Amino acid sequence: MESKSYLVQMNGVGGKAGVPARSLNGKQGVHHVSVNGSLYPAKAKSRRLRWDVKASDMANSTLNPIRAIVDGMKLTPNKDKAMIALSIGDPTVFGNLPTDEAVLQAMRDAVDSHKFNGYAPSVGYLRSRQAVANFYSCPEASLEAEDVILTSGCSQAIELVIGVLCNPGDNILVPCPGFSLYKTLAVSMGIKVKLYNLLPEKSWEVDLQHMESLIDERTSCLIVTNPSNPCGSVFSRDHVQKILKVASKHCVPILADEIYSDMVFPGCSCPSIASLSSDVPILSCGGLAKRWLVPGWRMGWILIHDRNDVLGSEIRQGLVKLSQRILGACTIVQGALENILNNTPQSFYSKTISFLKSNSEICFGELSTVPGLNPVMPSGAMYLMVGIDMDHFPGFKNDVDFTEQLVTEQSVFCLPASAFEYPNFFRIVVTVPEEMMVEACARIREFCQRHYRPRSCDSSDLEQ
Amino acid sequence: MESKSYLVQMNGVGGKAGVPARSLNGKQGVHHVSVNGSLYPAKAKSRRLRWDVKASDMANSTLNPIRAIVDGMKLTPNKDKAMIALSIGDPTVFGNLPTDEAVLQAMRDAVDSHKFNGYAPSVGYLRSRQAVANFYSCPEASLEAEDVILTSGCSQAIELVIGVLCNPGDNILVPCPGFSLYKTLAVSMGIKVKLYNLLPEKSWEVDLQHMESLIDERTSCLIVTNPSNPCGSVFSRDHVQKILKVASKHCVPILADEIYSDMVFPGCSCPSIASLSSDVPILSCGGLAKRWLVPGWRMGWILIHDRNDVLGSEIRQGLVKLSQRILGACTIVQGALENILNNTPQSFYSKTISFLKSNSEICFGELSTVPGLNPVMPSGAMYLMVGIDMDHFPGFKNDVDFTEQLVTEQSVFCLPASAFEYPNFFRIVVTVPEEMMVEACARIREFCQRHYRPRSCDSSDLEQ
Repeated sequence: MESKSYLVQMNGVGGKAGVPARSLNGKQGVHHVSVNGSLYPAKAKSRRLRWDVKASDMANSTLNPIRAIVDGMKLTPNKDKAMIALSIGDPTVFGNLPTDEAVLQAMRDAVDSHKFNGYAPSVGYLRSRQAVANFYSCPEASLEAEDVILTSGCSQAIELVIGVLCNPGDNILVPCPGFSLYKTLAVSMGIKVKLYNLLPEKSWEVDLQHMESLIDERTSCLIVTNPSNPCGSVFSRDHVQKILKVASKHCVPILADEIYSDMVFPGCSCPSIASLSSDVPILSCGGLAKRWLVPGWRMGWILIHDRNDVLGSEIRQGLVKLSQRILGACTIVQGALENILNNTPQSFYSKTISFLKSNSEICFGELSTVPGLNPVMPSGAMYLMVGIDMDHFPGFKNDVDFTEQLVTEQSVFCLPASAFEYPNFFRIVVTVPEEMMVEACARIREFCQRHYRPRSCDSSDLEQ
Repeated sequence: MESKSYLVQMNGVGGKAGVPARSLNGKQGVHHVSVNGSLYPAKAKSRRLRWDVKASDMANSTLNPIRAIVDGMKLTPNKDKAMIALSIGDPTVFGNLPTDEAVLQAMRDAVDSHKFNGYAPSVGYLRSRQAVANFYSCPEASLEAEDVILTSGCSQAIELVIGVLCNPGDNILVPCPGFSLYKTLAVSMGIKVKLYNLLPEKSWEVDLQHMESLIDERTSCLIVTNPSNPCGSVFSRDHVQKILKVASKHCVPILADEIYSDMVFPGCSCPSIASLSSDVPILSCGGLAKRWLVPGWRMGWILIHDRNDVLGSEIRQGLVKLSQRILGACTIVQGALENILNNTPQSFYSKTISFLKSNSEICFGELSTVPGLNPVMPSGAMYLMVGIDMDHFPGFKNDVDFTEQLVTEQSVFCLPASAFEYPNFFRIVVTVPEEMMVEACARIREFCQRHYRPRSCDSSDLEQ
């Protein structure tokens, strides 16, 4: 009876059809195969005789370039100067940019309601999705709740979009310099990354010819980051249209990383990529992290814009399936989302932007008169890239060396742009308090003045 | 000048070394290769001429058996009877099992502190990890903060552990019946699943011989769920030791899904698997979801038990790397975690367990006298499995058919255990209010009495 049940339950887990289920004589440790009720010795199965647990290829190929570079640096601040970190893309660390009280109240209300403790649908509560759809819908690119998928931070939004569009062996186009997560995720999934250049001399516009030259039949996704991390640049309407033209010509869908959407300085407009697209499907990734200044809350979303129904139901269903792997955002934050989006006052957003613009201007103004540095003025987000004319700093091998020594001498840490695959630049985060920004720029100036060598001179002749 | 910069920036993204960067004459749509400043027609690259966006293989292979089965069922309740869903593994849906006030207060305090809005380390705040380590540490299996990785729900914990241990082509051993997520995750990563049988006649103990017979050199992980979903069973100390012996003999690490740990009925003990292991590395996955009754909050963890340092640093580093892909749990919940673990009163846990035990006894008592049903009394968790003697129900093809008709006639929905790869059973969730449980059992009895046919009769002779 038990034996019968045993065989029935082997269903689908034994070997090929017709091959009887194996049984094992545990006491003697000998394998046997049961054939018509008789036991025969089985072909020996190899098994491990000692412990040998190795990390998977995926784990080993999950590379974080920022960590790889920063962990390799000797960061020993000058003990006579307080450390100023201009390296961390987290606007909350210095306490000068708190989120709005309405955002916190929405969270308290969600906790007190007792309504948001159970499982949400894997793509998020319908009502929260509707709130996001309402917030981002516009006449040129309307959104319904079903076009919104809530995720555990914008990172998971990006992971799901790459995951649904790309197979191993495919390639994606990624901006250079650009946010390192795209490559981290893609490479771990066996997807190739092709870097298309942004042009610092054109306010970090895309080198469209270069981008187009990289597209081939295995290009399954074009990633566009606007406003940009690490550049702080914002594309003009005209430039976005040119990008869309390339995508349309080659029939490549766009992953629009718009986590910094609406974080643009006064006088600069930044229409969503989807609002300018007539045919290219846009999967726009965003979240609460930056604009609402709560990156730790892991509240992200995908907005599916597909006016011409290019994606059909397959991509939407694929995103739903992928969302079921680990589910998405914390239900308390989901429950608070409608109130967060509807109750945060406009003044909160404007105040943040004014601060970022003011700090950017201070930083840009200071560094543009420092010999050997070429800062690029941003138009949004919270970053500013600075070129290093390495010819003038013969004492340093590269941007990593330069920024490492800047810590040693001046206790100022800027992220070397090698972390964004863009050597000889460094990135400054402009969210620090104004007085720290001023002090940091003064120290950078002192550092550069000390190490700057005029191009015509032989640096070996000069005293350090 | 620009052209030089263009070529410099092509670094690493062009073709082979020595092949000049391609440029593209966009207006004429003709590719050219620039060689020493002159343009030559390039070898035509194939490109898409029409939109053809397909979901990836991973998305297509992410299968949710529960959804696949439930979505295929015609669930049309009897309009004269209120629907009772005994199918949902979410203890919060009926409002009868609220979380503790201390848990909610911890969340309010975390919001009010303003300290938990920024990014946490990808493996979680050190202090929160320490709190989990303290909570679960025991003399037989001590834990430090560094042995804890916080995740976005127990699902992500399971995803990371499978992801770090297994390569495509490897196989994992999974209990049958068992939680469907293991297979969903594994198959989507190209990892094979081998189901080992649990034995209902032995209170769902593992068929150890069967389990051992499945191990081969590509077996990279043994998943043990204790207490069990969907069985509600709890292994004895002796049985866990036997499982450990098999894992030790074959050098296979264990993923212990212990999300229901400590949810065992009075009189039954359930030591953690790690506390009984002397050599087998145990990666224990857990979280707040079930015991604290807040599954939507997505607060999970991995506890790394590796007394003999079998895993070395590689697996730990691999988990850290994988955690950096999308980061982990919401920082507000992380910030609340220490208070949640330390301040939740013992009475809260006991009350939940008493309720689950009482409801299980009601359900088991009722259904064990129903002709044709064979309920198995659970010892923990929040589930009860019921065998259907299909021979006595000739009107139904299988458990799916049976449970579908139960909805049609009685408006009671139980999950067919085909969703757990275990046909001819169904699973009852025992978290519903007592009066609903009583009513549901009465309706199930009525249903079975109506359809039951004694084995000796020819069913075709009987009037329905």
